[in-house]
Amino acid sequence: MAQLYSSVKPTPMLKDELDIVIPTIRNLDFLEMWRPIFEDYHLIIVQDGDPSKDIKIPEGFDYELYNRDDINRILGPKASCISFKDSACRCFGYMVSKKKYIYTIDDDCFVAKDPSGKEINALEQHIKNLLSPSTPHFFNTLYDPFRDGADFVRGYPFSMREGAITAVSHGLWLNIPDYDAPTQLVKPLERNSRKFDLSLRYVDAVMTIPKGTLFPMCGMNLAFDRELIGPAMYFGLMGDGQPIGRYDDMWAGWCVKVICDHMGWGVKTGLPYIWHSKASNPFVNLKKEYNGIFWQEEAIPFFQTVTLPKECTSVQQCYLELAKLVKEKLGKVDPYFIKLAAGMVTWIEAWEELNSPEGTEAKAKAPKGKND
Amino acid sequence: MAQLYSSVKPTPMLKDELDIVIPTIRNLDFLEMWRPIFEDYHLIIVQDGDPSKDIKIPEGFDYELYNRDDINRILGPKASCISFKDSACRCFGYMVSKKKYIYTIDDDCFVAKDPSGKEINALEQHIKNLLSPSTPHFFNTLYDPFRDGADFVRGYPFSMREGAITAVSHGLWLNIPDYDAPTQLVKPLERNSRKFDLSLRYVDAVMTIPKGTLFPMCGMNLAFDRELIGPAMYFGLMGDGQPIGRYDDMWAGWCVKVICDHMGWGVKTGLPYIWHSKASNPFVNLKKEYNGIFWQEEAIPFFQTVTLPKECTSVQQCYLELAKLVKEKLGKVDPYFIKLAAGMVTWIEAWEELNSPEGTEAKAKAPKGKND
Repeated sequence: MAQLYSSVKPTPMLKDELDIVIPTIRNLDFLEMWRPIFEDYHLIIVQDGDPSKDIKIPEGFDYELYNRDDINRILGPKASCISFKDSACRCFGYMVSKKKYIYTIDDDCFVAKDPSGKEINALEQHIKNLLSPSTPHFFNTLYDPFRDGADFVRGYPFSMREGAITAVSHGLWLNIPDYDAPTQLVKPLERNSRKFDLSLRYVDAVMTIPKGTLFPMCGMNLAFDRELIGPAMYFGLMGDGQPIGRYDDMWAGWCVKVICDHMGWGVKTGLPYIWHSKASNPFVNLKKEYNGIFWQEEAIPFFQTVTLPKECTSVQQCYLELAKLVKEKLGKVDPYFIKLAAGMVTWIEAWEELNSPEGTEAKAKAPKGKND
Repeated sequence: MAQLYSSVKPTPMLKDELDIVIPTIRNLDFLEMWRPIFEDYHLIIVQDGDPSKDIKIPEGFDYELYNRDDINRILGPKASCISFKDSACRCFGYMVSKKKYIYTIDDDCFVAKDPSGKEINALEQHIKNLLSPSTPHFFNTLYDPFRDGADFVRGYPFSMREGAITAVSHGLWLNIPDYDAPTQLVKPLERNSRKFDLSLRYVDAVMTIPKGTLFPMCGMNLAFDRELIGPAMYFGLMGDGQPIGRYDDMWAGWCVKVICDHMGWGVKTGLPYIWHSKASNPFVNLKKEYNGIFWQEEAIPFFQTVTLPKECTSVQQCYLELAKLVKEKLGKVDPYFIKLAAGMVTWIEAWEELNSPEGTEAKAKAPKGKND
């Protein structure tokens, strides 16, 4: 009997309510390692770069794949809001998904092991993070009180113990940390792709980023409630034809955090870890980043002090208000922000179009998928 | 030669700049376990309860000991601001110290082990926390960037990487967590003093509590820069003759955090862990706590929204302003807060007196010490 039970595979959590979004320019061999974790989920692959190139996807995965031609066909002129030649294009996948939850991961990220040597099911941990409340309004010194066996410490107000709805789960990385180009350059050990035991401590914690605090959101290993916060998960205008790259996830993070704070929702960070296999070229990164490094000195104080009017009661309203303020305040820093603000508006228009009842039909015309 | 070197004991960090403050009602046998860590430091022992009782201190420690008679003699009528029959009395030790830094620890706390089985030098970790900057103005997802081998992640503004001065280092606990009485009561496993692997994860992290976020500060394992924030480390009026107990450290934590935020200083939490040996009686705790549990629902929103005027440029000024606001706003919740506000003012007066040039002389008349 014991054997019979163990041969029955448990249904993976949120199997029919979560899409995995992967931006890529290459064959997705990395999925082999994720097979036991991802095989029951639906994948949305957003192919960046040359649309005539064929991307190989390992057998047995349930997926739909969109290249630039598909994006142009589906969005028409509104496709201008989706970046090209930058992993920012992944947000197109958020838009065409029909699911409540999204997990997005980079194709150079592999399954990590915890200190006991056990392989980490990153997706399961993200789902646990999303399905349990957050604590944005007061700090719990023993980290996530909703984790198994954990609790609120003495002095945590009882009226706040219900917590807040969790909108975002931000996971971390072992092996190669998410550093900017200057830090990559000044850390020779990293430049040589050696391993760092010290900088890559496995920290066994999940925590809520407090209300009013911004954080650098990395898109490498990220999950969120699409129905809740999806319209704010725009990864901006990066890459081809733009003066900036590698700030797509940062931009989304600032916007998302400000809107979550306004709506009373929580953002968690910490577990799960993935194994980030290789550092990108710091010289190439520097070229992409230098404007972002400069502009963030203005953008972050802007987001730290922005307040959304009470009248904004939906994420769409918040986001359009934010676009207006970006144009007004950051437009003075560089004309790029005027273009970006317009992109934000186009993004919301496209989101509404695809996520209206008619839009759902348009989505049904999914391109090259396993079942075509 | 190697042998010669290894026989030379390194000088402990901040040996002459840090006092260890211990409130107690019993013999300090617990110090035996701390001997290798504490033996080179000066201890300030604040004896609570019956002053005629003799407290035994293990041989070889450098200490001064104050009982209630000493406190009354040294402070005169101002002794009214120091609690009796409550570990809140420990703050008298902060006042009479002549050092820049304080580490305070409860007498039921022992040396903990890290997951590798190595004994943790809690004091050394606190000192490292205090001597390295904090990051209260932006969140670093890889925790304390100033820890050995760690760094700022991509997207962390360069202008903020200098960090802020650290005023407080809040350490955590293995074995018995710091729960309130209701939580103790509803967790039968804890009531039976069993061990909990789940709730007591060793989390290998130090982090800054962001600006604008309050936290429940526990006084069990706490270090701070006395010269910087000492005047705000008042543990309030608790215990004998007061309608409340077990909120001494919470009160100090709220005040300290608001003032650190105002002054631009950082508060860290996380490592080091100590081993908390026994849970206090939840029924006794409930009796002490029930008013606090009720009042904190008003007090926390008060501290969350309080703003100190720009004119307050010293901790003393901030604290007196806070006392005024406590009287004004929380006085309406219960007359206890009017008494507490008066205690806050008396505390500052006593602090100034003892820490003026003449006060330093008064301090020199230390009672029962090893070297008397």
